[in-house]
Amino acid sequence: MVHNGIEYGDMQLICEAYQIMKQGLGMSNEEMHAVFAEWNVGELDSYLIEITRDILGYKDEAGEYVVDKILDTAGQKGTGKWTSDSSLELGVPVTLIGEAVFARCLSAMKADRTTASKILSGPEYAFTGDKKAFVEDVRQALLASKLVSYAQGFMLLAEAAKQYKWDLNYGEIALVWRAGCIIRSAFLGKIKEAFDRNPKLTNLLLDDYFHGVIERCQASWRRVVVQAVEAGVPVPAFTTALSFYDGYRSERLPANLLQALRDYFGAHTYERVDQPRGKFFHTNWTGKGGSVSAGTYNV
Amino acid sequence: MVHNGIEYGDMQLICEAYQIMKQGLGMSNEEMHAVFAEWNVGELDSYLIEITRDILGYKDEAGEYVVDKILDTAGQKGTGKWTSDSSLELGVPVTLIGEAVFARCLSAMKADRTTASKILSGPEYAFTGDKKAFVEDVRQALLASKLVSYAQGFMLLAEAAKQYKWDLNYGEIALVWRAGCIIRSAFLGKIKEAFDRNPKLTNLLLDDYFHGVIERCQASWRRVVVQAVEAGVPVPAFTTALSFYDGYRSERLPANLLQALRDYFGAHTYERVDQPRGKFFHTNWTGKGGSVSAGTYNV
Repeated sequence: MVHNGIEYGDMQLICEAYQIMKQGLGMSNEEMHAVFAEWNVGELDSYLIEITRDILGYKDEAGEYVVDKILDTAGQKGTGKWTSDSSLELGVPVTLIGEAVFARCLSAMKADRTTASKILSGPEYAFTGDKKAFVEDVRQALLASKLVSYAQGFMLLAEAAKQYKWDLNYGEIALVWRAGCIIRSAFLGKIKEAFDRNPKLTNLLLDDYFHGVIERCQASWRRVVVQAVEAGVPVPAFTTALSFYDGYRSERLPANLLQALRDYFGAHTYERVDQPRGKFFHTNWTGKGGSVSAGTYNV
Repeated sequence: MVHNGIEYGDMQLICEAYQIMKQGLGMSNEEMHAVFAEWNVGELDSYLIEITRDILGYKDEAGEYVVDKILDTAGQKGTGKWTSDSSLELGVPVTLIGEAVFARCLSAMKADRTTASKILSGPEYAFTGDKKAFVEDVRQALLASKLVSYAQGFMLLAEAAKQYKWDLNYGEIALVWRAGCIIRSAFLGKIKEAFDRNPKLTNLLLDDYFHGVIERCQASWRRVVVQAVEAGVPVPAFTTALSFYDGYRSERLPANLLQALRDYFGAHTYERVDQPRGKFFHTNWTGKGGSVSAGTYNV
């Protein structure tokens, strides 16, 4: 299930890279075919990048690109949805697969999108930078986002192992996913190596090699998201990956305010930074005691 | 359930606005207290903005702000999760509530975040613009994102009505949510008016009033997301709302490539832009016929 969920994420990331190059940079199928051919040699070497290369170069008998004739609607009743259900059940923020599933839902709303496209406007945008350098930024953004997606997938496996008392060998799982699987890639070999280095690795992002990848790709990743936002190109998977990265490396998130709100309107209580975990406090925020409802601590 | 899901979203949006002002602009509780007081008069007038104002101004007996002493971890086993499960089941892209639920999951991983914060770096950033103008940008970003969240919530209601054969009065639902509910706001009155104008409105974003709101807020919204991305402040709800907006107004999404990939590796078939819906095609991408597996059309 996690393999297939990751496959949803990988395909969504490839689609977003394609959309940025096509819509944001105005690149042709031929140009993008060459880009994916180049990407397939190196860190992104994988079956899905390889067949994207082939698809972008494929013409029908009329000499026209088949990819341009395909309707942009996809279904999503399978294992991507199952992975998201499981993530919600186990409380693991597998945000990228979630966005990939929802992106398919949105793609299926073709008639609504066609109507909306005639009413809702986007920004004025024309790319003015160095196209070749920006395509390399897109490659690095794709790599960094892919890393976050795999980190989230392995977080889900680890939480399942904990809750269901499974003994999982994460390095072996990475290897299994290389054997004829759709997500097979050089990248999975790096994951195996990370778990060989440290079988107790708690998160792929903390492994030295992957940490180095993120450090190296980070500036490009942010530039791509900024350009996409300014161009009005939807990149839900790239952005959720970056939000996750920024959240995961934040010792302090704004959930203190969230807890204050919940304590204010529902007396849900909160823990404190200067007190042991498991000790709960309530503040009578209004000074009246009348506008909160007590007795709902576990909602 | 949808009310409570939207409540999750509203709270997450407020938390992200707070985080941008606190972390990105370095504003004090006192300054943010004043900002929320101002926001509560006008388009954002609502119970949650009002109590955020109160919380940010609230000091304990030692004269210290309580909000700073609250641990930044929140639970999520309730109706937010239920709303997301239901969105996945009905195939409706309710992305903002999904991100809000996952943001709570991430907040709960306090120990992991503390470890990661010592290893994973962020960007160098110092805000250099006009602070007052940027705070107004944040207000508009919050308003636009909130509108997307409600549009998604009503999309979920509409799909449920369709699949379960319910006869729902959407204007009345908006009114009911004003009666003592946590999400009560002036905004819900505008939703009621939109459905009064057009009881068959298919999406809130297409209503003249809300369409005008989005048009007016759009540039601010993009500026806020860009600054947050450059500052390394996680804003998953702001960004997913913007991605949804950009996707929803796209007649053409990159799902054509997605369908090509699925047809390549699994012979899933695809529809075409130049043929009637319901007619399915398959391409023998490899020219060999051997590297695709047929007979899996409905996967």
